Amino acid sequence: MSNLRQMTDQAGEWLRGAGPHSEIVISARIRLARNLAGYPFVNRANRRQRFEIVERCRTELTNGRLAGGVLWVSLQESTELDRQLLVERHLVSRQHAQAGEDLPRAVAIGTDETFAIMVNEEDHLRMQVLRSGFQLVEAFEQINRIDDVLEDNLEFAYSRRFGYLTACPTNVGTGIRVSVMLHLPALTLTGEIEKVRRAARDMHLAVRGMFGEGSEALGDFYQVSNQTTLGRSENEVLADFQTTVVPQIIAYEQQARQALLRQKLSQLDDKVWRAWAILTHARSIGTDEVLSMLSHLRLGVNLGRIDTVDIRRINELFLLTQPAHLQKITGREMDSATRREVRAQLIRQRLGAR
Amino acid sequence: MSNLRQMTDQAGEWLRGAGPHSEIVISARIRLARNLAGYPFVNRANRRQRFEIVERCRTELTNGRLAGGVLWVSLQESTELDRQLLVERHLVSRQHAQAGEDLPRAVAIGTDETFAIMVNEEDHLRMQVLRSGFQLVEAFEQINRIDDVLEDNLEFAYSRRFGYLTACPTNVGTGIRVSVMLHLPALTLTGEIEKVRRAARDMHLAVRGMFGEGSEALGDFYQVSNQTTLGRSENEVLADFQTTVVPQIIAYEQQARQALLRQKLSQLDDKVWRAWAILTHARSIGTDEVLSMLSHLRLGVNLGRIDTVDIRRINELFLLTQPAHLQKITGREMDSATRREVRAQLIRQRLGAR
Repeated sequence: MSNLRQMTDQAGEWLRGAGPHSEIVISARIRLARNLAGYPFVNRANRRQRFEIVERCRTELTNGRLAGGVLWVSLQESTELDRQLLVERHLVSRQHAQAGEDLPRAVAIGTDETFAIMVNEEDHLRMQVLRSGFQLVEAFEQINRIDDVLEDNLEFAYSRRFGYLTACPTNVGTGIRVSVMLHLPALTLTGEIEKVRRAARDMHLAVRGMFGEGSEALGDFYQVSNQTTLGRSENEVLADFQTTVVPQIIAYEQQARQALLRQKLSQLDDKVWRAWAILTHARSIGTDEVLSMLSHLRLGVNLGRIDTVDIRRINELFLLTQPAHLQKITGREMDSATRREVRAQLIRQRLGAR
Repeated sequence: MSNLRQMTDQAGEWLRGAGPHSEIVISARIRLARNLAGYPFVNRANRRQRFEIVERCRTELTNGRLAGGVLWVSLQESTELDRQLLVERHLVSRQHAQAGEDLPRAVAIGTDETFAIMVNEEDHLRMQVLRSGFQLVEAFEQINRIDDVLEDNLEFAYSRRFGYLTACPTNVGTGIRVSVMLHLPALTLTGEIEKVRRAARDMHLAVRGMFGEGSEALGDFYQVSNQTTLGRSENEVLADFQTTVVPQIIAYEQQARQALLRQKLSQLDDKVWRAWAILTHARSIGTDEVLSMLSHLRLGVNLGRIDTVDIRRINELFLLTQPAHLQKITGREMDSATRREVRAQLIRQRLGAR
């Protein structure tokens, strides 16, 4: 799968650091879950059926009708490193990457990486659109276009009563999951982040770390997503995020940032410059510390406290410093200690330090 | 006491970073305790007697017979900031600085700061010679010359049976205390420092931090000193340090440093460069962190891993970043938060960072 190699040269569109409110909203993601009519769900299907599902989808997804073209990756034939690479790029879920060697499964990736369609994950089809900044409406339009294209030739399992049928009841109905990745360093520094967490829980929203379920919130990055889809229309779920949840969190974070600028400028600058210092001088560094330092640096750039680097480069480093990316870039497998050294070296190079 | 002002321009001779084994031995210090015959010890003397002791010593210490000349500082008339400054420069003890306002007391400081003589500390006279590097013999010769000069005109309390009489029994006899300040970062990094501590305790040596009794060992700096003087000649005490204690610790530290170079070069470089990074970029920093960072930087320079700064400048920063020095340099009293900022600024300036 040498075509995955070129991926490591840069980050996907969602890390471009552009889009509305990109100083706080890293990316917006919409996912739809669909299953082919006439087949059991993946966990109930036998080996032959699973193969048929993959082949049926492959035919449909690679027929050239999806805008921009796709890269088809057969996961059970991929190396572990390649699968890990796709996880780091948010193109497949950790579960999809780590499923047994004998589960036929795949992912179809849009050439610009704005969309990815997992085949035989929990559902037959899990489509996602991932866009930089707060482009939720654009993401919704794009995923609907994809959904429409696929529905021309594939029949999805659908119930008049429940809507789209899915393997897990929390996705039944519209099958839509909306999530936004937020950078909330000021709320974290001031401790107000707990209020946001509580408010999100009260609204039945999940708050997770950068790498989804089971990942801790590191480096002040938080993924906020809806939990259930039954009984609510896609538009309602979307409207919640578009008009209430995200704008409110953005406003809180902006207030906290202004408070830092007014009342704690010295501490703020200290954090920002120390982050820059560590990133440009460390000779050995782990991913957690990188995430934390990049977070402070990103805050500093966004608040105009430092201008030694731009947001796009910072965003790229989030990705390129991950273990699989590092190993793809250097073209060799490395133990953790070596990775720490190579990671530090890569960061210094990318930031123009010696 | 405006004549203390100029002190803050640089560090004393003991921080010159020169002298034998200065990569490990920061300084060697010898102290003698003496009391005037015919007067009670300080804690038993009345106010009039205490004044007389100070006056008697002032006459003798400022008569021009001490080589290089002295600066006479009357401590009860000094500001708290000036007294703190003298403590930071190791010219008076913390106890001497903090004694009550009404205790007449003083210190006579050699112009090059290689010696200081406290009057009315625990004993009537506490003379110390403090030299950079492992110059114990030189220090011993110098303090003997001072002792001889003073004994020409002052009669010291002496007992045929016990030797020189002192207020505290641990100093009776020769009244000599020898101490060396050691920089042991490699033994600290490898954890072997605990062995050194245990060995020192077994030899009845005290191991303390940079600022003497009650101070923690910070930044990998350790003061090793003898505990008792009764029953041992000055020469015996001195020979212990000169031929056994210090050379052995030096050898251990050198072995540990070589082991770091051979086996943990990446971790070593990481520590060194991070220290340089923090010191040249922080916008707010406390004394403990400065000590720790300067320690790593000093190790890096001594092992040839970094050449952005020389040892003398590093040694100066140990002193100039202390609270009283900072306030003398800027000419104003500052709260702790402001000191942290000014300290960071001073370090950046001295290290040539922006």
